[in-house]
Amino acid sequence: MDELEIDAVDDVELDDPVLVEGLPGVGHVGKLAVDHLLEELEGESTLVRRVYSQEFPPQVSVEDGVAELTCAEIYAVSVADGRDLLLLTGDHQAQTNAGHYVLTSAFLDIAEEFGASEAYALGGVPTGELIEEYAVVGAVNDESLREALEDAGVEFREDEPAGGIIGVSGLLLGLGERRGFEASCLMGETSGYLVDPKSARAVLEVLEDLLGFELDYETLDERADEMEEVMGKIQEMEQQQQQQQMPTDDDLRYIG
Amino acid sequence: MDELEIDAVDDVELDDPVLVEGLPGVGHVGKLAVDHLLEELEGESTLVRRVYSQEFPPQVSVEDGVAELTCAEIYAVSVADGRDLLLLTGDHQAQTNAGHYVLTSAFLDIAEEFGASEAYALGGVPTGELIEEYAVVGAVNDESLREALEDAGVEFREDEPAGGIIGVSGLLLGLGERRGFEASCLMGETSGYLVDPKSARAVLEVLEDLLGFELDYETLDERADEMEEVMGKIQEMEQQQQQQQMPTDDDLRYIG
Amino acid sequence: MDELEIDAVDDVELDDPVLVEGLPGVGHVGKLAVDHLLEELEGESTLVRRVYSQEFPPQVSVEDGVAELTCAEIYAVSVADGRDLLLLTGDHQAQTNAGHYVLTSAFLDIAEEFGASEAYALGGVPTGELIEEYAVVGAVNDESLREALEDAGVEFREDEPAGGIIGVSGLLLGLGERRGFEASCLMGETSGYLVDPKSARAVLEVLEDLLGFELDYETLDERADEMEEVMGKIQEMEQQQQQQQMPTDDDLRYIG
Amino acid sequence: MDELEIDAVDDVELDDPVLVEGLPGVGHVGKLAVDHLLEELEGESTLVRRVYSQEFPPQVSVEDGVAELTCAEIYAVSVADGRDLLLLTGDHQAQTNAGHYVLTSAFLDIAEEFGASEAYALGGVPTGELIEEYAVVGAVNDESLREALEDAGVEFREDEPAGGIIGVSGLLLGLGERRGFEASCLMGETSGYLVDPKSARAVLEVLEDLLGFELDYETLDERADEMEEVMGKIQEMEQQQQQQQMPTDDDLRYIG
Repeated sequence: MDELEIDAVDDVELDDPVLVEGLPGVGHVGKLAVDHLLEELEGESTLVRRVYSQEFPPQVSVEDGVAELTCAEIYAVSVADGRDLLLLTGDHQAQTNAGHYVLTSAFLDIAEEFGASEAYALGGVPTGELIEEYAVVGAVNDESLREALEDAGVEFREDEPAGGIIGVSGLLLGLGERRGFEASCLMGETSGYLVDPKSARAVLEVLEDLLGFELDYETLDERADEMEEVMGKIQEMEQQQQQQQMPTDDDLRYIG
Repeated sequence: MDELEIDAVDDVELDDPVLVEGLPGVGHVGKLAVDHLLEELEGESTLVRRVYSQEFPPQVSVEDGVAELTCAEIYAVSVADGRDLLLLTGDHQAQTNAGHYVLTSAFLDIAEEFGASEAYALGGVPTGELIEEYAVVGAVNDESLREALEDAGVEFREDEPAGGIIGVSGLLLGLGERRGFEASCLMGETSGYLVDPKSARAVLEVLEDLLGFELDYETLDERADEMEEVMGKIQEMEQQQQQQQMPTDDDLRYIG
Repeated sequence: MDELEIDAVDDVELDDPVLVEGLPGVGHVGKLAVDHLLEELEGESTLVRRVYSQEFPPQVSVEDGVAELTCAEIYAVSVADGRDLLLLTGDHQAQTNAGHYVLTSAFLDIAEEFGASEAYALGGVPTGELIEEYAVVGAVNDESLREALEDAGVEFREDEPAGGIIGVSGLLLGLGERRGFEASCLMGETSGYLVDPKSARAVLEVLEDLLGFELDYETLDERADEMEEVMGKIQEMEQQQQQQQMPTDDDLRYIG
Repeated sequence: MDELEIDAVDDVELDDPVLVEGLPGVGHVGKLAVDHLLEELEGESTLVRRVYSQEFPPQVSVEDGVAELTCAEIYAVSVADGRDLLLLTGDHQAQTNAGHYVLTSAFLDIAEEFGASEAYALGGVPTGELIEEYAVVGAVNDESLREALEDAGVEFREDEPAGGIIGVSGLLLGLGERRGFEASCLMGETSGYLVDPKSARAVLEVLEDLLGFELDYETLDERADEMEEVMGKIQEMEQQQQQQQMPTDDDLRYIG
C-alpha cells in the first residue's frame, strides 16, 4: 500500500463541474449535507473515485458483517437544470497535520482531472447555544467570490470563524487558491453539541441557489425531527433530575 | 535499519495455505489462539519469516538475560488432514496509524509469496460483562464468505463490532480485499477485562471446523483454570472489602 | 503540495542583509517586535518569499471572509542609514520536532540566497513575575559575537535560559552555526503570562543600536497601554473577588 | 539539514575498540557512568564524531551565553592497559519510536567504521526503593556472552527487566545482533527517583573488570555525597512537616 491509492471506479464526462466537500466535522453539517445531496440525486450520480490512504485511521467499518476499508469517495453528478457536481464524502478526516495536506491535494487533483476549477467546502460553525434562525457564514479564497455568496444570503462577519478553518475544508480554500481554484466555505451555524440536520438544510438551500439544483428535504427534515425528539428527551431527563433533587410538595408534607 | 526488514529464516513448500493472524488485542484472544495453535502443531511447524520494523516499539524483550528485538514471526505449518497454515504472531502492534498499513502490507506480501489467498484474523470483541456462552462474531471482506462461516457457527450481527475493526486485523480484511484475498475476522466474545483463554478456545473450535485440523485443548484449558482462580481471588477480595465496610452482626452486638 | 513550497513573490537586491526572525513564542515578544519593525519600515519593505509547509497546521486564517493559507513570510527591507534587513514573520511554529528543523533550514536557505550571513532570533524569556525593568538576555552561536551584544546592553547570564532555546529561534543559532551564520538570540524578559509589547520594545531598542535603524514606538506603546489596561482590569476583578470573600466592616456590623 | 548529519570531527586509529553507550535514562546511571569515564580518561580521549538529527528535540543548550545544537558525541579513547573504547554520550534520546531505530543504526555504523564489534549499553534498572547494595543486572544479545559477565559479578535474573529494554540501549542489543555485534546491557539497580552516582559506580566497577581500565572514583563519590545531602535535606523537611502536623509536648501542655 502506498501512502495514497486512488481507485478509478468509473469515468463520466462532466461539464465544468463544481467540487462539493462534506467530510465529518462540527455538527456533522458538511457530511449530512453532501450525503443528503447524494441521496436526492441518486439517479444521476456515479461513484467515480475511491481514495485510500495511510493518513486515514487503520480501520475497516463493518455493515452486516461485511468490512469496508476506510476511504473517501467522490461521486460525479450530472444535474439536469444546474451545474454538474463532484461530491466528496467519507467517514474520516486525516489523522495527522501533514495528512490533511496530502488528502486535500489528492482531492484537488481528482477535481482537476474532471475539469473542475470551483469548490465548495461545507461545514458547521459552532455557536455554543441553541439556534432559532440558521444563518450560513461564508469564507472565500478570493475577494471576488464574495458578492455572489452574499446575494445568496451568506453572511460575512469580520471576526468569524475566529480560529480560522481547520482540516480539509480550510485547505480546499488555501491549497485551492494556490492551484487556481475558486473555493468557498459555507458554514451553517450550529450549537456544536449535536448532529444538526437543520443546519445542513440551511447550507444546502444556499447551495441550491448558487448551483441551480432543486432538492426535496423530507428525509433531512425527518432526521431533524428525530434529533428534536432526542433533545426533548434529554431536556426531560434533566428536568426530572432537578425535580428529584428539589423537595416536592409531597416530600414536604412528611417533613412538616 | 530500513523501515521494514524481513528475514527469510527458512523456506517451506505449502499447498494453498491460509494466513492466520493473532497479534495482541482485546483479551489477547487472537494471540492466545495462534500461540496455542503453534504449541499444538509444533512438530509440523517451521519459522519461515521474521518481520522487523521501525513501526514496532524500539525495544528488546529479555528472557533469562537474553534480549530479542521486537518482531513479528510467521510460521509455516503442513497440517496432515487439513489446510496448510501460515501462522502470524508477535508481541506488539504497530505504534502509528501508518505503521498498521505498512506492516499489514508486509504480512500480505509474505502470505502471497507462500501462495496464500485466504486469511483469518483472530481477535476478541469486548462485551463489558462476564460471559457464560462464548459466541464467535464474524466479519468478512466479501459477502460470499459469510455462509461457510455461519455454517461453522459464527454469528453475524447487524451492528457489531460497532466501531469497526482497528489495526492489523481490520486491515487484513480491508487491504486484503484490494489484493484479492478472501479474508475473515473471527472475534471471540470476551469481557474485555482479562486475558481470556476460553474465548480463544471458542475461536479455535470454529477454525478447526473451517480448516480441518484437530486440536487438544488441555494447555489452553489449564490457562483458563488459572484465570478463573485469579478471578475467584479478585471477587473474594472484593467481597471481603464490602463486608468490612458493612457492619456485621458482631459489630452490631457491641453497638446495640 | 510538497512538504515545503517556497513562493518567490518578488526579488530585491540587498547589501549584506541581516535575517531577523519573529515567529510566535513566549509573550509573543519576537512576533510583536518584527511586526512593529515591518509596520515602521513599511515604505521600504517588500514581501519577497512565502513559505508554505505541511509542517504548519492544516489551516487557513480568515479575515473579512477571505481565507489565507498558513505560511511564513520574509520581507526585504533596504534601510536608509542602517543594515539591510530580511524580516521573517508568521502566525505559527512547526507542529512537529522534525518540522522545526525543516522550516529553519528553509529560512536559512532563503537568507543565504539574499546574501545574508548574520541572523537575529527575537523572543522572550519568561520570569514568572511582573517586570519593572525590561532586561534583554542574549545567546550567541559563537563566543566572538558576545562583546558587541554586551556593548549594546544585552545581558549574558550563566544559567539562562535554563532549558536552552527551543524551536526556530534555537535552531537558527544551532543550524546557522553549521552553515557559517553568525546568529544571536535576543530574549526580552517577560512575565510569560501575557502578550508583552514593552518587552518587544526593549528587544527592538537593542536591535536599533546593533543594526543602525531608528524606530518610532508610538503604536507599540499604545499596545502596551492597552495591555496595562487589561491587566489593571484583571487585578481589579481579583481584588473585588477577594473583598467579596473577606467580611467587610459592614458585614461584621450585622454579625456582631 | 538531512534527517541525520554526522560530523567527522577527528579520526583516530583504534585497536578492536568497544562501544560504550551512556545516553540519559533511569537515574541517569548510564550517562553518569560514561561522563565519568570521559572525565577520568580525558588525557587519552579524542572527540571523533558528532551526530545531529531531526530525531533529537529542536533545541540548543546554552552555556555562558553560547548555544550548542543538540547532538550525540562519540569519543575515541586509547586505554594504556585495557581495551580501546568508543564512548557515546549526549543530552537527549530520540523523540519518536522510529528515531530510536535511526539513531542506533547510525551509532552502530560509526562503531563499525572504527572497527568495533562489541558494545556495552549502560543504564539503570528501577527498584522503587532505596538501595543499600548496588547490584548490576545484565542482558546480552547472545547466550555465549553471559558467563564472562557473571564472572564479573553481573546478575542475570529470570524476569528482569520485566518490560524489556527500551530506547537506544535496547536497540544496541537488538539491532547490534542483526549486524554481528556482541552487545550487552549493564543496568545498575537504582531507586529510580533520583540521579544516582552510586549506581553508576557499581556499573563502572563491572566494566573496569571486563575491559581492563582503572578508574579513580573521587569526583563520582563527591557527586554521590552531594546527592546524599540533598536526600538528607528532603527527609528532614518531610520529618519537620510530620512534626508540625503532630501535636508536640509543648502543644499538649496547653491543651491538657
